[in-house]
Amino acid sequence: MSRLESFIRRPKAQRACLNAAIDLIRDLNGPVLEFGLGNGRSYDHLREIAGPASDLAREIYVFDRQVAAHPDCIPPQDRLFIGDFGATLPRAITQFGQSIAMVHVDCGSGKPEIDAQVVAILKPGLLQLMRRGAVLLSDQEISDPGFTALPLPHEVKPGRYFMLRRT
Amino acid sequence: MSRLESFIRRPKAQRACLNAAIDLIRDLNGPVLEFGLGNGRSYDHLREIAGPASDLAREIYVFDRQVAAHPDCIPPQDRLFIGDFGATLPRAITQFGQSIAMVHVDCGSGKPEIDAQVVAILKPGLLQLMRRGAVLLSDQEISDPGFTALPLPHEVKPGRYFMLRRT
Repeated sequence: MSRLESFIRRPKAQRACLNAAIDLIRDLNGPVLEFGLGNGRSYDHLREIAGPASDLAREIYVFDRQVAAHPDCIPPQDRLFIGDFGATLPRAITQFGQSIAMVHVDCGSGKPEIDAQVVAILKPGLLQLMRRGAVLLSDQEISDPGFTALPLPHEVKPGRYFMLRRT
Repeated sequence: MSRLESFIRRPKAQRACLNAAIDLIRDLNGPVLEFGLGNGRSYDHLREIAGPASDLAREIYVFDRQVAAHPDCIPPQDRLFIGDFGATLPRAITQFGQSIAMVHVDCGSGKPEIDAQVVAILKPGLLQLMRRGAVLLSDQEISDPGFTALPLPHEVKPGRYFMLRRT
């Protein structure tokens, strides 16, 4: 496979996973959270398939250290949690309780030791935020007795993404 | 269309155009030239579908001001023309004459006045290098009585790429 093809495959896998995760929460109320805004592409897609103007009509809240997204892909100020996850997660738990229907974790740095630290900070917060049946889509492997693995869309290479259900 | 979808569409259009252009030169001998190596993704794809190890077995020569590609996507030293096109094109014309079967121009800067200058430098060189029937695929619009327009693959938005045949 050429690098051009592998470059096409990565965002296609992300789109397939986002669409699949959102399909799974059609009958489960609650907001959607994204950890890692980045350039805002996946937020823009989530907004299109699940945001307030879509038929799912979910509020989408985004967590990141800073806002570095394309201007068209910046969430409203009151939907942003800016700062370290260790500081913003407790505020989110106070605000949402255990009401979240879907979480997208998209903050892999490519540095395993840093990513492991981020997952260690995120996991207890996600367990408190996600309601029973909620779907976690993550670019990082996250395992816990509070989650069960869900199958990925067939076109997505195992290990590229992880999809889990809060039990 | 979300930004994620438009991000997927761009390299897919490039792949479709490269595949279509190479299909059109199956029965036309001659090397392939690429102007604009960039990150090397399209070179890697060209190499896979038309390079020496493929069934088309074409030599691929690449022109750019400097090499900034992924290490896996750097052409062999003797297949590289490094420097301004104004300096490297005359050398290429001496080396190849009018024997080239396919050219990929992929050097849009997003700045129309710079891109127009690049096209003005490239066009007379391409007319001298490309044999009758050769295919020009370009991210910049190039028009000349020496070229006739070819249809783009149906999935490619008009204006995103230009495909021409040397008459």
